[in-house]
Amino acid sequence: MGSDSPLEGSEPQGSELSQESKSPMGSSLYAKSGVDTGEAEHALSRLLLELAPTQVFGTPSETGVGRSAAVIRVGPVRLALTMNGVGTKLLVAQAAHSYDAVGIDCVALNVNNLLGVGATPLAMLDYIGCEEADPEIFTILGRSLADAARLAEVSIIGGETAQVRDMLRGSAPGRGLDMVGVAIGLVPEGDLLDGSRIEPGDRVIGLASNGIHSNGFSLARTVLLGRFELGCQMPEFGHTLAEELLRPAAIYVEELRALREAGIDVKAAAHISGDGMLNLHRVEAPVGFELTALPAAPPIFRVIEEVGKIDRAEMRVVFNMGVGFALVVPPGEADRALEVLSGCSHAAWCIGHAVADAERRIWIPSEGLVGSSKQFMRDTAEATRAAASS
Amino acid sequence: MGSDSPLEGSEPQGSELSQESKSPMGSSLYAKSGVDTGEAEHALSRLLLELAPTQVFGTPSETGVGRSAAVIRVGPVRLALTMNGVGTKLLVAQAAHSYDAVGIDCVALNVNNLLGVGATPLAMLDYIGCEEADPEIFTILGRSLADAARLAEVSIIGGETAQVRDMLRGSAPGRGLDMVGVAIGLVPEGDLLDGSRIEPGDRVIGLASNGIHSNGFSLARTVLLGRFELGCQMPEFGHTLAEELLRPAAIYVEELRALREAGIDVKAAAHISGDGMLNLHRVEAPVGFELTALPAAPPIFRVIEEVGKIDRAEMRVVFNMGVGFALVVPPGEADRALEVLSGCSHAAWCIGHAVADAERRIWIPSEGLVGSSKQFMRDTAEATRAAASS
Repeated sequence: MGSDSPLEGSEPQGSELSQESKSPMGSSLYAKSGVDTGEAEHALSRLLLELAPTQVFGTPSETGVGRSAAVIRVGPVRLALTMNGVGTKLLVAQAAHSYDAVGIDCVALNVNNLLGVGATPLAMLDYIGCEEADPEIFTILGRSLADAARLAEVSIIGGETAQVRDMLRGSAPGRGLDMVGVAIGLVPEGDLLDGSRIEPGDRVIGLASNGIHSNGFSLARTVLLGRFELGCQMPEFGHTLAEELLRPAAIYVEELRALREAGIDVKAAAHISGDGMLNLHRVEAPVGFELTALPAAPPIFRVIEEVGKIDRAEMRVVFNMGVGFALVVPPGEADRALEVLSGCSHAAWCIGHAVADAERRIWIPSEGLVGSSKQFMRDTAEATRAAASS
Repeated sequence: MGSDSPLEGSEPQGSELSQESKSPMGSSLYAKSGVDTGEAEHALSRLLLELAPTQVFGTPSETGVGRSAAVIRVGPVRLALTMNGVGTKLLVAQAAHSYDAVGIDCVALNVNNLLGVGATPLAMLDYIGCEEADPEIFTILGRSLADAARLAEVSIIGGETAQVRDMLRGSAPGRGLDMVGVAIGLVPEGDLLDGSRIEPGDRVIGLASNGIHSNGFSLARTVLLGRFELGCQMPEFGHTLAEELLRPAAIYVEELRALREAGIDVKAAAHISGDGMLNLHRVEAPVGFELTALPAAPPIFRVIEEVGKIDRAEMRVVFNMGVGFALVVPPGEADRALEVLSGCSHAAWCIGHAVADAERRIWIPSEGLVGSSKQFMRDTAEATRAAASS
């Protein structure tokens, strides 16, 4: 980890093409941590401008801006496709020489995005670029991909391995590694799970994350690796920093299947990756969300927040803060949904409800925050009201 | 280009998972050029061993070992998927600061692989990793992707851009770039174009490549950049070395569509990428191929061969040598196929014919070579026959 300069972090922009960028804005520490968001946003917008006209050349995507997967119709079936890389979590894996999580993250990132448009994952492909093809590491990568494929109920049907020594660098010479996944899923006929049917009063259910997943690693590395060794035992976590950072991302295929089989009317689903709860801003209906019962952020987030002196508003945009996936269900089905979910792998809570709001804002009253498309900020209206009533 | 050490080249292994590796074996110069094929083969085999059991978790691939794309059935449709990175051609693009070709190559690599299983390309996604997101470069990347999407008749429906500064390196600091594409296509019902219907006497038609495409860049860089500057005007090419190396890969969608519309019975199709004409070894029928009328290798290949003192047998495995795609048609349809192809963008020639051979060997009599799954070698039987008859 010595070679991981805290000022050279990086972060997947996480931006599906034909979508707005998901990179956090307006964060001075984030800019320092290596993600030059202004320039990156500009570059991305130029790329998207060039790619937009291609929609007429072949089979266009049915999903508009801001969805977690592209959806195309092929004859009588609708398919969802998503492509995401593991990003700089790989640098921590290299430094700790622990690769068990990264294949799982590669699968999780992609299948959870499919779940976000209501698709059932079917299959994946993966790209592994490396400086040196180490058989031991490739075995662990393969095993972790296969473990995750079992959980996600997908076949890994293809991909590419490329030894591209001069193109990569890692935590130490020879360790450079990149890993990108693609997942394809089947979208049921009818509702695209775009949240168009959400009504005020509908409940938001959150599913527990397993650590920081693959989001916010730039900031996490900047804050933590400047201060702690990866092998450092951290009493807050009950294990080493490396073990905490390398917890494999949760896969929510089981939960979504259980809800479907139970006939729960899931009106929207959101993979809480980059942008945190702002992912709920993407629903079609003119509703916002009041998140009145978010779980306490797990220790890793509190450590990053305190050590890095990061604003809660920024923490809420960069990290999942303990909730890796969110669902919207009718109020009358929330209890039954929680009962169904109690038989699944990840903890589930009712964390809030929909409210009428044409601007689709996200309120976190306990933290005095309100969020729109790109950022959380102090809820001054709330502050004004509070002052007026005091 | 000064920073492109000729001994640090690299090369996409080009190995579709659930396929045998396509990296060239037994080449001492190739090993020196950065592709440690023995170790890479071993690592890949370990990865594939771990991934094989995943076929039962979701939707398995219908294609076996050695096909250029995975094929899955989703309800009533059959889909082909392929995932390939541009590889170290990107380093030449960076050094020459010329990115017009790389988006085209990203599309070409992937859609040509779809054509190899008889699929019609529908859509693509792409991953762009970068050290720094430069708006000018992203504009050119987007434009080149869009230009290629038009030729390939695909929509670019999604993808990811990731600013992963610490994970990449390039021809100079800040220029690091990686680009990986995924293509999805529709496979018509019936024949998977696996060559199972090929009979001795069937004709092989070759389609002209446009330079070295994205294959063999490790060896090309090792040989050429140790001796020439990228900006060097080369009389053999009529332009600079950079311009020659950065010619965009040919896209053969137009040709395959024209043949289909004309009702030509294409029995097999092979994207001539890594492994060159050995890609024809993958057909299902017990046939080999005698390639008696290959076109003369274009100047770039002759220069690499002469300057690098590379064996022709190795050249034939690493490079396309002027033929970027091959088709097999019945003898009675070859003339009509050539007539149809004469109205398309790339030159087409009848380059040989199928012969009965359970070992599926590829003969190039004019060069005294015979090839099987992994390599070309001197055709000693031929030599023996020649000696006996002299």
